[in-house]
Amino acid sequence: MKKRPLILVSNDDGIDAPGLHALVRALKHIARVAVVAPSIQQSAVGHAITVRTPLRAYKFHRNGTLFGHAVDGTPADCVKLAIRSLLKEKPDLVVSGINDGLNTAVNVIYSGTVSAATEGTILGIPSISVSLEYTQKPRFETSAKIAALLSRFVLRNGLPEDTILNVNVPAIPASRIKGIKYTRQGRSRWEDEFFQRKDPKNKDYFWLAGKMRILDKDEDIDQIALKAGYVSVTPIHFDLTHQQYLRKMREEWDGKFKLSL
Amino acid sequence: MKKRPLILVSNDDGIDAPGLHALVRALKHIARVAVVAPSIQQSAVGHAITVRTPLRAYKFHRNGTLFGHAVDGTPADCVKLAIRSLLKEKPDLVVSGINDGLNTAVNVIYSGTVSAATEGTILGIPSISVSLEYTQKPRFETSAKIAALLSRFVLRNGLPEDTILNVNVPAIPASRIKGIKYTRQGRSRWEDEFFQRKDPKNKDYFWLAGKMRILDKDEDIDQIALKAGYVSVTPIHFDLTHQQYLRKMREEWDGKFKLSL
Repeated sequence: MKKRPLILVSNDDGIDAPGLHALVRALKHIARVAVVAPSIQQSAVGHAITVRTPLRAYKFHRNGTLFGHAVDGTPADCVKLAIRSLLKEKPDLVVSGINDGLNTAVNVIYSGTVSAATEGTILGIPSISVSLEYTQKPRFETSAKIAALLSRFVLRNGLPEDTILNVNVPAIPASRIKGIKYTRQGRSRWEDEFFQRKDPKNKDYFWLAGKMRILDKDEDIDQIALKAGYVSVTPIHFDLTHQQYLRKMREEWDGKFKLSL
Repeated sequence: MKKRPLILVSNDDGIDAPGLHALVRALKHIARVAVVAPSIQQSAVGHAITVRTPLRAYKFHRNGTLFGHAVDGTPADCVKLAIRSLLKEKPDLVVSGINDGLNTAVNVIYSGTVSAATEGTILGIPSISVSLEYTQKPRFETSAKIAALLSRFVLRNGLPEDTILNVNVPAIPASRIKGIKYTRQGRSRWEDEFFQRKDPKNKDYFWLAGKMRILDKDEDIDQIALKAGYVSVTPIHFDLTHQQYLRKMREEWDGKFKLSL
């Protein structure tokens, strides 16, 4: 009998986050699940990896049974350590999430959730990142079901090398979700603002705040598809080359820029 | 009289790193320079930003004069805080570096040096990241001169919106540098390995090691151009959409994948 596939689950909200637990419950219907996730909240760590200090991993129990491994590190650390050291067999799929907040537009590069999936892909395993729009009382069940449907599809059909699926789900009831859109990453970004305050010792500190400025319009863009009631699926990669400008650069810079050392 | 342009300098090796100081010296020939850099070494932090804790900034003096601001945060934090709060005027250019080690291939996504430049671009300022191949005794002068030549060129000619220059310099004497190549980001990546050891209390820890596995051949790819004795300049962006697969996905998935909730 063929073994059931193995899915590695990680996230950036930490091993005890409700989004991860909903995801694990849904994925157990279609596969064996191994959990390796940060021991504490790691939001906005981007694709950080820990190189200057050692990493620790702990067995993490829930309701008296072994649930997975907690790692004192970033999401990318978790996936690297899981695949290279902690797991006895190579997983067939990595699923990261479910993040409590969207990872659309520029957020993709700040996202620890996406970086866990990216790390899976770097290590040669098809990977999916799943995020749910932020609300005061998030309900992760619908996103978890979507994650399981996509996981089953990817386990059967595969993904091209070096391709990650970045999935975002609107915070609306399942009955109101209109369908799925295959989207591009948007250009929307944060209007940053720093609160500047005084601490109890009267010294300045700064705290990042701000709101998202929507710069996109087309419905084939992540954020806009979500607003229209669709699940957004963006295929992403980690080749950051700006191909279009590279062609232009080769034509235009060559005559003009001189490297006189 | 027109004011001299203002360049914001940051890095990930910290405000007292020799690579940053060589860069500042070279850039002072062509512009005014403001330094806002991490107070401590921040390698491999990727595009992390600090959202869950406040940030501190300190005036940093060298040889009795004010040199810049040190920030207890990541490279991306430094650039955000500089542009939004610390600097009285918007810089004309952001230059990040000079990193002690290459930021080619997959390293681009782990790199704090690149992320400082990316953050500059997100905030609407042309930005350049400069890295020097690692050696036991790095000499940053040639890279600093290259950074200044490219900075002058970009100050005059600009860069397209959302485009960062990722510059890498081989560790060879200036006289042996063959010229400049406009390159693509390579596919080479790390063969990760974790040292598993026992600490003084006999508990396990893991420490990331490994070496780069070169997967590329073409001389128009970052790592390969460097090996051939060229300075590598890769235009990068932060739209991670895998355009090619997106087109395929829209054709192939639509009939096959069903979102049955």
